[in-house]
Amino acid sequence: SSPRPQDINPAIEDMAPKAPKFEIKTPKGTRDWSGADMVLREKIFNTITNVFKRHGGVTIDTPVFELKPHPTGKYGEDSKLIYDLADQGGELCSLRYDLTVPFARFLAMNKDISQIKRYHIAKVYRRDQPAVKKGRMREFLIYSFDIAGLYDPMIPDAEIIRIINEVFEGLGWQGKYTIKLNSRKILDGIFQVCGVPEASIRPISSAVDKLDKMPWEDVRKEMVEEKGLAPEIADKIGKYVVLKGKRDLLEQLQKDEELAANPSMQQGFADMDLLFTYLDAFNAGHSVSFDLSLARGLDYYTGVIYEVVTEGSAPKVSAASADASAEKSKKKKGKAGEDEDRSDDPTVGIGSVAAGGRYDNLVGMFSGKTQVPCVGISFGIDRIFSIMRANQAKKERKNEVDVFVMAFGGGKDFTGLLKERSEIAARLWDANIKAEFLYKVKPKLQNQFKAAEANGVPFALILGEDELAQGKIKIKEMGLPEDHPLKEGELIDLKNLTKEVQVRIE
Amino acid sequence: SSPRPQDINPAIEDMAPKAPKFEIKTPKGTRDWSGADMVLREKIFNTITNVFKRHGGVTIDTPVFELKPHPTGKYGEDSKLIYDLADQGGELCSLRYDLTVPFARFLAMNKDISQIKRYHIAKVYRRDQPAVKKGRMREFLIYSFDIAGLYDPMIPDAEIIRIINEVFEGLGWQGKYTIKLNSRKILDGIFQVCGVPEASIRPISSAVDKLDKMPWEDVRKEMVEEKGLAPEIADKIGKYVVLKGKRDLLEQLQKDEELAANPSMQQGFADMDLLFTYLDAFNAGHSVSFDLSLARGLDYYTGVIYEVVTEGSAPKVSAASADASAEKSKKKKGKAGEDEDRSDDPTVGIGSVAAGGRYDNLVGMFSGKTQVPCVGISFGIDRIFSIMRANQAKKERKNEVDVFVMAFGGGKDFTGLLKERSEIAARLWDANIKAEFLYKVKPKLQNQFKAAEANGVPFALILGEDELAQGKIKIKEMGLPEDHPLKEGELIDLKNLTKEVQVRIE
Repeated sequence: SSPRPQDINPAIEDMAPKAPKFEIKTPKGTRDWSGADMVLREKIFNTITNVFKRHGGVTIDTPVFELKPHPTGKYGEDSKLIYDLADQGGELCSLRYDLTVPFARFLAMNKDISQIKRYHIAKVYRRDQPAVKKGRMREFLIYSFDIAGLYDPMIPDAEIIRIINEVFEGLGWQGKYTIKLNSRKILDGIFQVCGVPEASIRPISSAVDKLDKMPWEDVRKEMVEEKGLAPEIADKIGKYVVLKGKRDLLEQLQKDEELAANPSMQQGFADMDLLFTYLDAFNAGHSVSFDLSLARGLDYYTGVIYEVVTEGSAPKVSAASADASAEKSKKKKGKAGEDEDRSDDPTVGIGSVAAGGRYDNLVGMFSGKTQVPCVGISFGIDRIFSIMRANQAKKERKNEVDVFVMAFGGGKDFTGLLKERSEIAARLWDANIKAEFLYKVKPKLQNQFKAAEANGVPFALILGEDELAQGKIKIKEMGLPEDHPLKEGELIDLKNLTKEVQVRIE
Repeated sequence: SSPRPQDINPAIEDMAPKAPKFEIKTPKGTRDWSGADMVLREKIFNTITNVFKRHGGVTIDTPVFELKPHPTGKYGEDSKLIYDLADQGGELCSLRYDLTVPFARFLAMNKDISQIKRYHIAKVYRRDQPAVKKGRMREFLIYSFDIAGLYDPMIPDAEIIRIINEVFEGLGWQGKYTIKLNSRKILDGIFQVCGVPEASIRPISSAVDKLDKMPWEDVRKEMVEEKGLAPEIADKIGKYVVLKGKRDLLEQLQKDEELAANPSMQQGFADMDLLFTYLDAFNAGHSVSFDLSLARGLDYYTGVIYEVVTEGSAPKVSAASADASAEKSKKKKGKAGEDEDRSDDPTVGIGSVAAGGRYDNLVGMFSGKTQVPCVGISFGIDRIFSIMRANQAKKERKNEVDVFVMAFGGGKDFTGLLKERSEIAARLWDANIKAEFLYKVKPKLQNQFKAAEANGVPFALILGEDELAQGKIKIKEMGLPEDHPLKEGELIDLKNLTKEVQVRIE
């Protein structure tokens, strides 16, 4: 039998070139971006920032880490996912978990800013179990747009939903996304009417939030067994949280006398009523689903909440049925470690591709005094990317270069014309024309064409001794068919070089 | 006499609204970016990325932290400045110290990429003593451009210098910057000829690198007293490292027979000879100063090195003379802690605004085998920004909105036309026109104009009941002089709305 790897003589391994002592990889749940992936990511960037600016957004930037007391205690059950910096003396810091809390800290520090539409494009950090292929990362990029300031109710909330529509329609997702919508005031009203004790409202809300990845039976079990809720209260909740609709659902709830008597519910009804009216005016209601199962895990929301889902957001298999089948194969493999990638686990979906809501009290937690009400949305770019990448067909150009400067010549006297190629390139750069040439003193023509083709550069400028002597240079459009009249290129005057090139690349 | 702050009765302070228990600030050596600062930073971004793309650059992105073994041991004396993440189980990681080592790690991982011009725009982290006003930060933004691949010598090195010139001329710094240039091969040749023991070459090189902030006497002291160099060797080094020039200095050194006999020196001479030739062809030699005092602290450079300085780069006062005067006032105040900001310390200059060089062996430290030679430059955006901000005169627009949609009306029947304003805004957004309106149900006309003026929005669209009834709306250019014929605005047909607006904003 052939030797197993561990049987190989260690002396043989010593003969291999010295390998570095560390593994060459990025940390778990992180990735590099390059090539076609980066080109697509930049496209997404351009589409979304264009929408943000169209609505008057201005951008800000904050440090990647914040003082440690800041971010904790605002994330509810998710606080355990925060990355800390090592204590190397001085201040204790943590990597930012989202862009919302840093924004609230920023507003509390800048008391002169009472109104702002700000967008922030940056990475955030969560020590969660990764599923890289599904865009579930530990380091991930989010694009946030938030409207801060005291205004007449629900107008900015409606504009955020209009922005969500513009983003996904701009990305070509027409008809392929749903904006799930709910209100903390309505949810809290339901919990109160069902009899959930005040102290249990946030934990029970967190349990409801899992309805997008677990069946009701499992959520009910968590409420009753883990969180100590009376079974009859859980059952009452269960009747409400399965409801979905649009304005019709709102009207149905308004007819429920028990709900209609609850003060939190009354506020929620008034909000949703205004919101649906404004969404009509903005022509932004078509993708909205008023969904009572939407709860959002984070503690800081106070009003409307939303989450955008698409095909692939939900897991293929519920965790409960997977648990049952995992039970059977338990002896084969141990339970997955929390570091392990779950890209191929059918109980993990892509999750929501955008989420947000209203948070009116968060700035006050920093300022201790002044409140600045806020409403906003964060787009999860890694997840959006993973869906678009899978659907992408055509090959992208690798760089944006328009002209490749070449030398043509042969024989032993051929100098390679490096000086002349350099000067031509410098003239093109001076005219803001994107240009490259081969970093070789005596390059072969064939290799120069190969390099230009590899990057999809559309034009070649070809220098030859004879043409140069006449003050001319050849320009050739790449990839023309064999019978095209300009297949062999055209001679142009060197003194009109940049003008002649500009006319062609435009 | 009036009471000093500490004499105030603590009971009175208790009556103030409850302050949060943490300080509201960013961590030391970090900052937020917003408002006019962010607008200027985005301008710098556009200028520099335009240059990078003109030269065929493609962008990549890497995680903010790397596995801990990666970055250490490559930074020489600066390794102590690396930020570590806390050990929370799993892999040990550190925040990236620069973008060069992650690029080398990226190349080692992607063996199919043997040639690339990549740019990378990201923040890096150093636990150094900060001087925020001078742009010396612990978290700072750098723009890196690197050319990787095996090419004929010195062509990419020369293109990097051309890129440096394009960047600073694009930023309007004509005649205000100097590209200090040297070669590790020349520097090592000098050290060898002077008799520096091989093992001391990097530490002695680090000492020479401090010549931009210390007088020669202090550097000599560090060499002899701290690093154990024989005084006569230090003196011999001292005669060389004060030399500066252009091609003339190269010719002068080439005549020095002792230097000309050294193999490292011969390689350095050949490199610099080619480099000066190529710089002429690129028309990129005008701001270059061949400066033998330039050494660069990092260990990984193997060939040409450069550093860009400007007014304010060097400290106003040398550390040595400051030490003497500090001695006198020692009893007044204790020595500054390493966390303390040194913005007002005259012994701290802005430092270099860009730096880089050739590093041919770094990729091999990761791959263990394949070498990919590289040369690159990193621009320190915080420092460039701090200089440009100080010189900036004119006020920038705060956002890019072109149209503010207003309602005009009065009396008790005025509805505020919120629905109509929303619909007009939605039509403008649909046509990719940047537009805003006041989030108020019944806004005063005056407040709507104020909001538009605050952001410098150029056009107002004013809705009135009477005009609406006729299918018209008023458009008004903001800030026209009193006697302008269009001061009062023009009525346009609502059905041509977006066309009429587009004509005016273009």
